[in-house]
Order: sequence, then structure tokens, then C-alpha cells
Amino acid sequence: MSEKKTVVIDLKFARREVDEALSNAFAGRTVLRAADAAADLSDARYAVIWKPDPTLFERAPKLEVLFSGGAGVDYILAMPNLPDIPIVRFVDESLTTRMSEWVVLQALSHLRQVPAYAKQQRERVWRELTQPEAKDLTVGVMGLGVLGQDSVAKLKIMGFNVIGWSRSKKVIGGVETFDESGLDEFLAKTDILVGLLPLTPQTRGIFNADLIGKLRQGGALGEPVFINAGRGGSQVEVDVIAALKNGVLGGASLDVFEQEPLAETSPLWSMENVIITPHAASASDVRALFRNAEAQMNDYEAGQPLRHVVDRTTGY
Amino acid sequence: MSEKKTVVIDLKFARREVDEALSNAFAGRTVLRAADAAADLSDARYAVIWKPDPTLFERAPKLEVLFSGGAGVDYILAMPNLPDIPIVRFVDESLTTRMSEWVVLQALSHLRQVPAYAKQQRERVWRELTQPEAKDLTVGVMGLGVLGQDSVAKLKIMGFNVIGWSRSKKVIGGVETFDESGLDEFLAKTDILVGLLPLTPQTRGIFNADLIGKLRQGGALGEPVFINAGRGGSQVEVDVIAALKNGVLGGASLDVFEQEPLAETSPLWSMENVIITPHAASASDVRALFRNAEAQMNDYEAGQPLRHVVDRTTGY
Repeated sequence: MSEKKTVVIDLKFARREVDEALSNAFAGRTVLRAADAAADLSDARYAVIWKPDPTLFERAPKLEVLFSGGAGVDYILAMPNLPDIPIVRFVDESLTTRMSEWVVLQALSHLRQVPAYAKQQRERVWRELTQPEAKDLTVGVMGLGVLGQDSVAKLKIMGFNVIGWSRSKKVIGGVETFDESGLDEFLAKTDILVGLLPLTPQTRGIFNADLIGKLRQGGALGEPVFINAGRGGSQVEVDVIAALKNGVLGGASLDVFEQEPLAETSPLWSMENVIITPHAASASDVRALFRNAEAQMNDYEAGQPLRHVVDRTTGY
Repeated sequence: MSEKKTVVIDLKFARREVDEALSNAFAGRTVLRAADAAADLSDARYAVIWKPDPTLFERAPKLEVLFSGGAGVDYILAMPNLPDIPIVRFVDESLTTRMSEWVVLQALSHLRQVPAYAKQQRERVWRELTQPEAKDLTVGVMGLGVLGQDSVAKLKIMGFNVIGWSRSKKVIGGVETFDESGLDEFLAKTDILVGLLPLTPQTRGIFNADLIGKLRQGGALGEPVFINAGRGGSQVEVDVIAALKNGVLGGASLDVFEQEPLAETSPLWSMENVIITPHAASASDVRALFRNAEAQMNDYEAGQPLRHVVDRTTGY
């Protein structure tokens, strides 16, 4: 049996969590840290990365596989001098479950008027607000990968009417789905729009005034709601803000932004019916990341194909 | 075919909603309003009620069945001169779905630290908080009737570990359940306690310092959380407040209170990690109430047994 190949770690996560997770990972392998500027990475064959230093590929010229520390890989595809080797996306039950927790939480928060009730609570006002129930609303999910499909299933179980959109048509039992050519029809039926799209040249800026203007008006919530947990680069924030101001949108939940951290001066922070979280919808569990990467490394060295490899022509 | 029997309505709901719903309900029946002081109710055989006037039973001495406008009937059982006739609880898919919306929303809100993130948003702070995932937490649901069982199922699908408690043992597939004798064991496993109990002599004041003190400490959220959407009379508010102050409880979501509306002076309004809603977790849909009552009246007149009749010995 050949020696197990060397791994380099370059994760811009909390140092302590990475250290703790590493203490139980990659048995039998040499593990190097890119953060250690003196480390010799020349023999590393795998890199487990999240927003790595641009110098990584120079320091580690023998890399055979890149493992992304998140579900999205747009930050890798944008790197200069990216070697032509497989990029493995992080697909994990934990990542999926957490994303669905956040999506269902946000959809329910708008359904049940959480911002309005929170304001009443601060003002010590006891007043019941009229409200639709979940089945009176259609949630339209854009992006029907692993994350999107799990959110679709859970939103349905909570009682929402759910429809889905993806660039190429996906068939999901019991859910009406649309592809690129059906976007307008999809939007015209959608009261709560959930963005779970990867960032690609096709999705950059897709959530703009034109798209937002096609969402259903006059549904059970009055105005439509925009929820985005995909990538900030997919939204034109100035358009989202304008739509919230002029009543084209009735509310929003945003976890991602064009620039992160979101600037302290952004009007989004204090807009009524807008819920902000700091790119925390689905925090990667580092232990799960290492568990997945290690299993794939072992399979790969045993001659098995890699799973969840990014298609560079589509960008996900 | 005999003439259809007369109905009297005494619902302390929004007048306009009742009027609208009545315009499409009880075809072929005389419908009287108790709010009309001049109305002669002496021939009414059914009463559809929510917090009716105490004089109702004098004015309508020939009542055969009472239909409650809510899932709970404690307010009826406490009425003076209550006639010894069947009381039908309001059981409806809409009522159940809405309650589960609220329960899942609250459990997710504490899991995902909504109050802490809302505070950060108000202060324009971008900081990711560490957090467990749903499977790291055990939600213990007290009350396993129609509402409780639906909440149990939906909490499980969202990823929570779920256990249940009811006075007499209930068997639910895939869920560990406890009965009266297992209360302490149930509480010792519970990180998030959900109260969906009817108000009976046995449940009055059940959520007191003693019970709260038996919830699991040191679970994945640190301190346990108390969620109550059953009846305010089941909670000893001074004990809940003390437990929140001294850190025995880490948070709460309360829809019901000992006195409603909750007094403006209650410290609960402004306590950190406490979410207040004004007895709105599961608003009865008046149309659904009338649909259910009308169907039961027709069945009853056709010789069928009434469904969801209250057992006066248990109080639900």
C-alpha cells in the first residue's frame, strides 16, 4: 500500500475550530498549514480551502485535487493561476440541514410577521395581526441542487405551496418546476422568492429590478418577499433597496451581500421588514468538511472516482 | 325531512370576519346573534361560542350542543350554569397547521439565535455566532393531542431530536414518549420545552420553578428554552421570569399569559431572548370553524355521533 498523500489546509475559518477538528482528522497523512509561511508545501497533493491565499498554487505546484470548504466555489474559479485539477464541492448533510433551517425560518418569519410583532413587543403593544396561512402563499425556490431540493421539501411540509426554478429543468415529485424559458411564468406565481443559486456568469446580478418587478403583486402577503442565501453577487443591492423603498418588495431576508461584511452605512440594516444575517445561513462544520474530504481522498487513492466535482463550464 | 335546527353565534372575534364568514355558512338554518340583545334565543339548539356572555345559557335554554371556537375549552368549563350537553372542540387542519408554523418558527428562532442576531442588526454589527444544529438539541413537547403530534412530526423533519410527554402514554412512531410517571426523565432530556397542554386542574400552574428547574442544563444551547402556546394558566409567570433572570432558562417564546392582554408593566416584554406574541400562535379561522360546525350539525341531525367531544372528567 502506497503512502497516503499530503494535505495542505488553507481555511479562513476560526482558527480554534480548525485546530480542534484537525486533531481528529486525516489519520496517517502529513497535514500542512498554509498559514505557516515557513511550511514547505511542495509535496502537498490535496488542498482543503476556503478563500485561500493567492500564493497557494505557487507554493503547492503538485496539487491533484482541491476541496472547497463551502458549497459555493465561485471564489476558487475567480482565482488567478488556478490549476486545471478537479475541484470538489462540499456537500454534506449538516450543511444542507442548516441551510434549510435558515430558509424555513425566514419564510415562516415573513409569513408570521416576525418583524412587525417584534416592533409591537418593543412598544409593549398587544395586537393580533391578520395573516395568511402557509398554503395561501407560493414560495418559489431558484436553484434546485442539493440545498434547494431539501428546502423545497421542508417548505412543503410546513404547508407552503412551493415551486422551483433551475437553469435546466429538474423533475421533483409534487412540485411544479420551471427552467430558463419559464422564468417569467415562475416569477409571476411567486410570493416569496428564495435564492439558492451558485454564483456564475449567468447568475451574477440576476436579482435585479427587472426580475424583482416580475414577482407576483397582490398575493396573500400583499407584496412579495425576497430571501437570498446563495451568493451576494447574484443580487443588485441598489435594486433590492429601491424595491423595498417603493413597495415593489414587502420584505427581505438577506444572508449574503455584494460586499461582505455589509458596510455599516448600508440602508438595509435598518429597513423595516428586512432581516440581516452575516453570511451565517449555513456555516460549514469543519469536522464534517474534514470527514468528507478524508473519505474522498481515501476513495480516490483506492481508484474510485471523486464525487461532487465542479463542472467548470457551468461553474457549479 | 325535519327542519334544520337554529344556531346562535356568540364569538368574541373581529365582527367583520364573523359577518363575512356567516354570509356563506349554515345554509337553511336560522342563525341568531347573541350580541343582538333583543334577539329571542329561546329556540336555539346549537351555540357556536368563544368567550360567550354568561347570560347565554339563560337566554338559550334549549341548547343541545356547544361548539367551541378554539381548540381549548377551559373557558367553557369554567362558566357558571353550564348545561350538561356535549361540548365539541374545534379541530381543524388550518388550526393545526398554524400552530405548527408558530412552534417550528419559535424552535428555529432559538436554535438560530434570532434575538441575538436582531440585536446585532440594530447595532449594525456583522458577527457570526457559533451555534449548534437542530440534531444537537432535544425538543420536548408536552401535550400530544392533534396539535402536539403535528408539531412533533414537523420538528423532527426540521432535524430536531424530539421527545413527547402526555398524561397518559401515547405511542408515536420514531419518537420516545413519556407519561405522568416519566415526567422527570422527560424534563432531564429536554433542551427546548414546548407546552401545548390544555388547561385543566392538573395542568394549572404546571410550568413552575420546580418543573423548569428539572430541564436539562448544559445542553448544546447552554440553558434550556421554554415555549408555551397552550394556555397561560399553565405557567407560573413569576417563576418563568425568575428562571430567565437567574439563568435557569436561557430564553422563552410565549404566546399565552396568566392575564391577557399581557400587562404593559410585565418585565417579559423587554427581557433578552424572550419572544412575545399576543395569543396569535393559532388564530381560529372563522370560515373553517363554521364549516366544521355545520358539517357536524348535519351529521348529528342525520343520527351520526358527534366528533371531538370534550371529556369533562379530563377537561379536554
